[in-house]
Parts: sequence; C-alpha cells; structure tokens
Amino acid sequence: MSLYAVIMAGGVGSRFWPRSRRAHPKQFLDVFGDASLIQNTFARLQPLVQPDDVYVVTNADYVAKTQEHLPAVPAENILGEPVARNTAPCIALAAAKLLARDPDATMVVLPADHLIANVGRFHDVLTVAVEAARTETDGSYPLVTIGIRPTHPETGYGYIQFDADGDRDGIVDDLSDEPKAHQVLTFAEKPDLQTAERFLDAGDFLWNSGMFIWRADAILAAFERYLPKVHRLFAPLADVFGTDAEADAIDDAYQRSPKISIDYGILEQADRVLVVPGSFGWNDVGDWRAVHELAEKDEAGNRAEGNVILQDTARSFARSADGRLLVLVGMEDAVVVDTGDAVLVCHREQAQKVKDVVDFLGVHGMEAYV
Amino acid sequence: MSLYAVIMAGGVGSRFWPRSRRAHPKQFLDVFGDASLIQNTFARLQPLVQPDDVYVVTNADYVAKTQEHLPAVPAENILGEPVARNTAPCIALAAAKLLARDPDATMVVLPADHLIANVGRFHDVLTVAVEAARTETDGSYPLVTIGIRPTHPETGYGYIQFDADGDRDGIVDDLSDEPKAHQVLTFAEKPDLQTAERFLDAGDFLWNSGMFIWRADAILAAFERYLPKVHRLFAPLADVFGTDAEADAIDDAYQRSPKISIDYGILEQADRVLVVPGSFGWNDVGDWRAVHELAEKDEAGNRAEGNVILQDTARSFARSADGRLLVLVGMEDAVVVDTGDAVLVCHREQAQKVKDVVDFLGVHGMEAYV
Repeated sequence: MSLYAVIMAGGVGSRFWPRSRRAHPKQFLDVFGDASLIQNTFARLQPLVQPDDVYVVTNADYVAKTQEHLPAVPAENILGEPVARNTAPCIALAAAKLLARDPDATMVVLPADHLIANVGRFHDVLTVAVEAARTETDGSYPLVTIGIRPTHPETGYGYIQFDADGDRDGIVDDLSDEPKAHQVLTFAEKPDLQTAERFLDAGDFLWNSGMFIWRADAILAAFERYLPKVHRLFAPLADVFGTDAEADAIDDAYQRSPKISIDYGILEQADRVLVVPGSFGWNDVGDWRAVHELAEKDEAGNRAEGNVILQDTARSFARSADGRLLVLVGMEDAVVVDTGDAVLVCHREQAQKVKDVVDFLGVHGMEAYV
Repeated sequence: MSLYAVIMAGGVGSRFWPRSRRAHPKQFLDVFGDASLIQNTFARLQPLVQPDDVYVVTNADYVAKTQEHLPAVPAENILGEPVARNTAPCIALAAAKLLARDPDATMVVLPADHLIANVGRFHDVLTVAVEAARTETDGSYPLVTIGIRPTHPETGYGYIQFDADGDRDGIVDDLSDEPKAHQVLTFAEKPDLQTAERFLDAGDFLWNSGMFIWRADAILAAFERYLPKVHRLFAPLADVFGTDAEADAIDDAYQRSPKISIDYGILEQADRVLVVPGSFGWNDVGDWRAVHELAEKDEAGNRAEGNVILQDTARSFARSADGRLLVLVGMEDAVVVDTGDAVLVCHREQAQKVKDVVDFLGVHGMEAYV
C-alpha cells in the first residue's frame, strides 16, 4: 500500500513577474535563495514518499526543466499537459496513471510552489490525513484535504468550514494536539475582510491549502459521479499507458476536457470530504508581498538582495540584477525587483496587481517580457 | 558699455543621481527633454548678451563638454577651475578677466542649471537690474541681485528681505508692475517651515536666486574690502591673462584660495546691495521632486519617460533606460530613474537625500557610480 505524491506544477505564477516568465515559471525560482520552490516541495515529502513514487503534472513545455530540477524523480513520472485545464483534469490524469500502477494507491496531491516552515508538523498532519483517506466507512473511502489554521483574517485564500461535533478541542488550536480528521461542512470563496474576521473568530474555518489526500480509486469514483465528462476522457487512458498511443491519447483528452478546478468540480459537491487542520507555517507565496513577509529582514523590516543600498527605507524588498546598483531612498512598503530586462516597482500591499500587468503585456504584444 | 554674462557651471548636481555623475553633471542633462540646462541658460540670455560676451566658469574637467554644448561661445571664454572653491573665487576670476577686457564691463552672474519659464519677464527684470548696477550713487556702484517672489513657503531656498520704503506696491506682487530695485535688508538662510510661512506672509521676503548683476570693478572693489585674501589672489591675474603663464597662475590662485560663497563672503557684508524682485517661473531644479513638479504630467500627476507602464500609480516620475521595461504598480509620490548601470527608487518628498547616497558611494569606493 504505497503512498504516492502528485505535485501540480502547471502554472506560471505571474504575480512573481518580472522574475516569473512563461519560460521560467514561479515553481523553478529560488525565491528564498536556496533551492527552487518545486525542489523544496519534493524534498519535504521525504521520507514519507519515495522519489520513485513522486509524480509531477506540469505544462508540456516545462517537462525538461522539471527533470532538471528533480533528477531523483523518474522521467516517466513527469507528465506534460498539452494545454492548461485547471486542477480537475490534472488530477484525473494522475489518478488514472496511479491506479494503473497500483490498485491500492493513495495519492497526496499538492501544489509545487508553496512554503512550509515546519516540516515535522506537516508530516504529522499528512500522516493523519493519509490514514483517514485509507479508512473505509460504509463501503467507501473519503476525500481528504488539509486545512490551515488561520493566523489572521486573510482575504487572499479560500476557507473550509469543518464540523467540530461540539468538540471544542477541534476548534481551539493547540499545537500539542494530535491532528485529526473532521467532516467538511462548506467551502467558502475568498472572503472580504469583514467575513474573514468572522471566520477567524468562529474558530471552525481553515484556509484551503490546495493539498488533497485520497485513494486513486476514490477520486476516480468521485469524477465518475460529479464530473462524468472528465471521467470519460481520462479513465480510459489506463488502456494506453505505456504504449505508443499514450501521448496522443492524453493530448486528445486534454483538448476535449473542460477547464474546471477539483474544488469546484468535486470537493464542493461530494458528501464525504474530510479535513485535517494543521499549523505548520504554511504560505502559498502568492506574490511579492508574501516573499517579503517570509524573508529574513533587517531591523527596519527591509530585505535586500544583490547590489542594493537602502537609505531611510522601511518594510521594503529590493532585488538587483546583473550587479546593477539599486538604490532606495525614503521608501516604505516598496517592492523593487530588477531582472535585467525589466524593473518592477510595486507597493507591497498591491502586489496582487502585478498579474494584471502581465496580462496587459500579453494583450499588447510585449511577448518578450511575458 | 557691453553687458557680459558669467555662467557658473562648476557643480555636479548630485541630487540628480543616477543621471548626474561626476563625468556628466546636471547642467549637461536634458532634464526637460529638449536641450541641456546649460544650453537653455545660454539661450535665454539672447539677445541681451552676445555669445562672444558670454563666459562660463566650470570645473577644468568639464571645459571640453561645455564647448560641445555651447559651440557659439568662444573657447577662450570657457574658464576651467582646477579645484572647486565655491562661488566667490569663481566670480573673482571672471570679474578680473572681464575688467581686463573692458573697464566698464557689467556682468550678469547666473547658475547654469536653473529653469526660467517666462523669458520675457526675466529680460524685463534683468534689464532693470543692469540699469541699477550701472547707476552711480555717491561715487560707487551697487551690487544687484534678483529675488524671486515666493509662491509657497519653500524651505529649500535662502531668502532676501528688502526695504519696501513704506511702498506697498513694492511688497504686493503684481505682474503688471514695472520691476524696480530695492535696498536689501537681510539675507536669511534656508528657513524651517514656520519661518518660511512667516516670510511668505510678510511680503517683503524673496527667494535668493543666485543671480547677480554688477560692474566688474564694483565687485572687485567689494572683494578688496570684504575678501581681501581672495582679491590678492585673483586681481593680479590681470597681468598674465593671454600669456603662457595664465594657466599656472590661475591654478595657483585656486589652490591657495579659501572655499567661500559670494553670498556669505560679500553680499551679506556689503552695504549697498539692491534686489530686483521678479516673477518669471523660476526654479532651481534642485532635485527629482522639482523635475516632477515642472514636467508635463498626465491626469494622475504622473510623468513617464521611455519604456514605462504605470498601473494604479499617482504623482510619480518614472524614466527607463536602454529600452528596459519599467513597471510601477500601486505607487504614489515615487521617483524611479534607471540609467542602465543604476536604478534609483526614491520618495518624491525625500529627493534631497539622493545627495547623501552619492556621498556614501564616494566614501565607500563605489566610484563607478559616482
């Protein structure tokens, strides 16, 4: 009964522009100076998941780069998507692949580009989630997700409300508590600040981490019930895996697949969805603000990388390129990122909008910068 | 009775870093996109001063560049200072030079790097100042300066208080009034905001423009009286002008001269100093804040030069270099200047501090950027 991991690495992470580009997306960046985000994601699965049992689903264009970053992962475990169709088709493909290899496969699905500070606690939570996913009730296996104990009223994440069963221990966060699985009541979209504050106060809302644990057969059964079209496209691929027809068949399934997320398509519909709450220093590193927040900073709250001089500057992030000198004077809450061909100067609290600029560049034919 | 001009162009203008450099100081920059500041200063002297009668005193290193920028000025009129000794020695040299050429010379001394929007009114004021400088009273000629009618309580300029002689017309600014010369009462250093507001309310305080008009013999007489050491060094140069000994003699005088400003050394000491108030859109373009203030801007108060994209940005100045893309997101009151080898990101209200960074670079051996 092996445990498998499926790392979803299909996105560009355009909020990381100008460092992230179509040809060099976020998961390959060494945002925190040591290894790339995808390398860290892979590393923190050890020793729970063997390298041979790690799969990556990524854009077909990124397969070679993924192999470079994860040489321990067998090349055949790196699956290239011909077109982006959001998370549901990606997971359907991986589940079909795993089920063909191991009828008892349990899979951990996780994004390639998140940060986890406390790997020990992450392992504890993951172990409980795997156990829950392998526990049969009334002849079926649950879908399990990991929810993050919110530390502040974040408006940038979706939330998961769970059933505390009158169990105050389930609500009150205590790091010494053993993690346990709870029934999910609702998935909530990214809230406004007032709603986020209410969620935080309520105590039974968690951040949606985008990490899922389930048996491959259980998620495929859920596809059959809730996303039958996707199931019809991807489940039959089992017959061609390992043959010359595989690549074309996968290509065809993707071309005909709708774009739909696993959250919207399945988790919000399914009855038996569990969540294991966890607190392990998780961050989705969604934009430059998060990078600043997570980076080591000086007393003034500044983070400088490269040939940088800061004068009368506070709470700012500055990164120079190619040895070019970058000087900040009298700035507060600024993010400045030079990449040689482009310079971004952004207010820290508006880092989400960097994505809009990348969209603008694409629409206006400035492909060289995208 | 010719009128001569002496353009003082010895400074670096380090507040314009990274555009201004030791090898390319502020007066040679095309800050407003058309001609360089020194070219504009020269051009606005026409037709009052003939090109042959224009002199420039600059750093010896900048003589060639000055010739390039002002090809209409005879090469022998461009005087190179071997070392910077502030304005008094510079003016003593020019006065000695002019007196040797024309015993009746009247000289207009003006900085190379200021901006004047209304050249017609500047000419009116200058004409009145020249007339005053040529008017003998009790056997001597006055020293005349031009004072700018303040438009706001600026703390970055020195002030001149004049004697309104109970003449309310002298105090109340009226653009239709004929300019006239008033006796100077006091020179005031750069004030704090409260004092600047008091000056503005009083009505008899003007901004010190650094523009002076006097007969060459009158200023040399003032040197003899108030700065006798400088006079002893520079007045005798008249004997060597045009000889092989000239360059060495000037070099020697500068080496032995104290560093002192004409304001401090003479104007604040002399009895008969007049000021002609003027309103002609004057600005000393002291830093990037002034450039932003003076530049044409869009509705959001932004000025973009080069390959720049602004998103949700207001009251900012952005200039890219070498076609590199510069993107501002969510910024307010920012100045961003890329010069290829360096990028400055500065709060608009802290632009004065750019000078400190340049000092820092010099002290820390980062000569390549100075």
